[in-house]
Amino acid sequence: MKTVPSKEEILSAHERIKPYIHRTPVISSAGINEQAGCKIYFKCENFQKIGAFKARGAMNAALSLSKEDLAKGLATHSSGNHAQALARAAKLLGVPAYVVMPSTAPEVKKRGVKGFEGKIFECEPTLAARESTLAEVIAKTGATEIHPFNNYDVMAGQATATIELLEETGKLDYLLVPVGGGGLLSGTLLAAKYFSPDTQVIAGEPEGADDTYRSLQSGNIEPSQAKSVADGLLTSLGDKTFPIIREHLKEVITVNDHEIIAAMRLVWERMKIIIEPSCAVPLAAVFKDKKKFANKPVGVILSGGNVDLERACDLFIKYK
Amino acid sequence: MKTVPSKEEILSAHERIKPYIHRTPVISSAGINEQAGCKIYFKCENFQKIGAFKARGAMNAALSLSKEDLAKGLATHSSGNHAQALARAAKLLGVPAYVVMPSTAPEVKKRGVKGFEGKIFECEPTLAARESTLAEVIAKTGATEIHPFNNYDVMAGQATATIELLEETGKLDYLLVPVGGGGLLSGTLLAAKYFSPDTQVIAGEPEGADDTYRSLQSGNIEPSQAKSVADGLLTSLGDKTFPIIREHLKEVITVNDHEIIAAMRLVWERMKIIIEPSCAVPLAAVFKDKKKFANKPVGVILSGGNVDLERACDLFIKYK
Repeated sequence: MKTVPSKEEILSAHERIKPYIHRTPVISSAGINEQAGCKIYFKCENFQKIGAFKARGAMNAALSLSKEDLAKGLATHSSGNHAQALARAAKLLGVPAYVVMPSTAPEVKKRGVKGFEGKIFECEPTLAARESTLAEVIAKTGATEIHPFNNYDVMAGQATATIELLEETGKLDYLLVPVGGGGLLSGTLLAAKYFSPDTQVIAGEPEGADDTYRSLQSGNIEPSQAKSVADGLLTSLGDKTFPIIREHLKEVITVNDHEIIAAMRLVWERMKIIIEPSCAVPLAAVFKDKKKFANKPVGVILSGGNVDLERACDLFIKYK
Repeated sequence: MKTVPSKEEILSAHERIKPYIHRTPVISSAGINEQAGCKIYFKCENFQKIGAFKARGAMNAALSLSKEDLAKGLATHSSGNHAQALARAAKLLGVPAYVVMPSTAPEVKKRGVKGFEGKIFECEPTLAARESTLAEVIAKTGATEIHPFNNYDVMAGQATATIELLEETGKLDYLLVPVGGGGLLSGTLLAAKYFSPDTQVIAGEPEGADDTYRSLQSGNIEPSQAKSVADGLLTSLGDKTFPIIREHLKEVITVNDHEIIAAMRLVWERMKIIIEPSCAVPLAAVFKDKKKFANKPVGVILSGGNVDLERACDLFIKYK
């Protein structure tokens, strides 16, 4: 897919990946609704295969390759969830996965990749180191790079979460997702445009990595400061995600680390489910602007649940 | 209800409480099944109202009172989940709840009771102190004591989780539940006898509170040592629960605190759901005797998810 996914391409992606992914539940919490003052429908991608929505995009991208390309394997650099997703897709399709990961990636995410027999190449936690290491791996193996977000097939896959959410909720006034590189956000914007044009998509973004907010103001892709507990959202936008976001996104709500961890705690305590810091960002955004959402039906995509318990515990103590 | 619940009484209890409780999901984890070597169906009562199966029994007991008795209110002493369950039942029915709690009860459980407008009377964490405080409260208010487990209506309510589980799984070779005072265990034994007589119920019990194991050996209700991280299972059996357990229970599997916290961690990490230490005991029991369960369909009732995050974090660190 070399252009922005069409309605039909997103529907095809959904059919293509259905046998390989969970249809995750949509749940609500009376306690959280009361505190937030609106009716929130959580699409629980933390219960998705590999514990995150990334299973969708990676699977769609893998299934969209030619037989010849697929046989040579899949490659990527990723801070975590996409890496597991790609390793899983490769394993299911019987091809190798080559994953370049920063040495600082959480243990739980490295174990996830190894559990799917992905081959990990560790590098320094800089974009330059990631890219050069990945280039070497691809030169050696002939594998195809599946970028974590700057890829139209990945985007079409991520869009499918919104299709399922809308099928269960009916009309939503708002739909909130986190933004890092913008794969989920682009996919969500397209899905909302095609399937629920009256739903306003809002991005939740950490204050310490508010490059999307700044990029929309400047009109250029701004680099991320990458200073947030939301470790899945530290990347900046790509040249495929930014134009879609610029065209369709009306609002970014930024939240600080205290607000993120408070929202994460609320979900753990009230819903009894585990979400990672990045995943708590859209709920924190709802609390940041309660007036806007008052009494409205609001969709929130819970993006993932892969967090080392030790790290989560440290965060709960630090931000109490 | 003054006698052991009949099949019809358990079915009536289910109809009676249905409007007030969640039908909780039954879920499986491919990862945990692989590690355990059997097919486990988890009945997720951690997603039940108030975060534990106790919502069932308390609601059934409240709804079974006469109008006159109900109006004077409900009273109990409880270390936690039953307290919240009773406060919730009282609030829904518009009557007062009087709850005697040990001063050592987790904050999250006290907050739960207060959230339902229950009136808390704190006392020393001894059975004697609990009973004398409760007697005073009842003398003053005329409220009816709803015992956490030694009550046939409570037992019939707890039995309803098994009805729902069996409806979704079909035949189970084994069904494991934790045992503290024996309310859930008695109810489960009766439900299995009535609705799935070929299913063998097994109790999971902490080694440091193995009074059920010892009571079955001695033929008398033995006191609990009350030394375990599984703080919901520290009580000994009652004169209504013990006879049912003695008649129908074939096996108790005891597990130590390391095994309990390892099972708890596994559920948090692999299933992305939050369970309290007591709730992890039956899964720890499956791992203790993997040979018995090999390749069999096994039901496990996940009893509850009310644990202070700080306490859970301390336990994960201590037992790593």
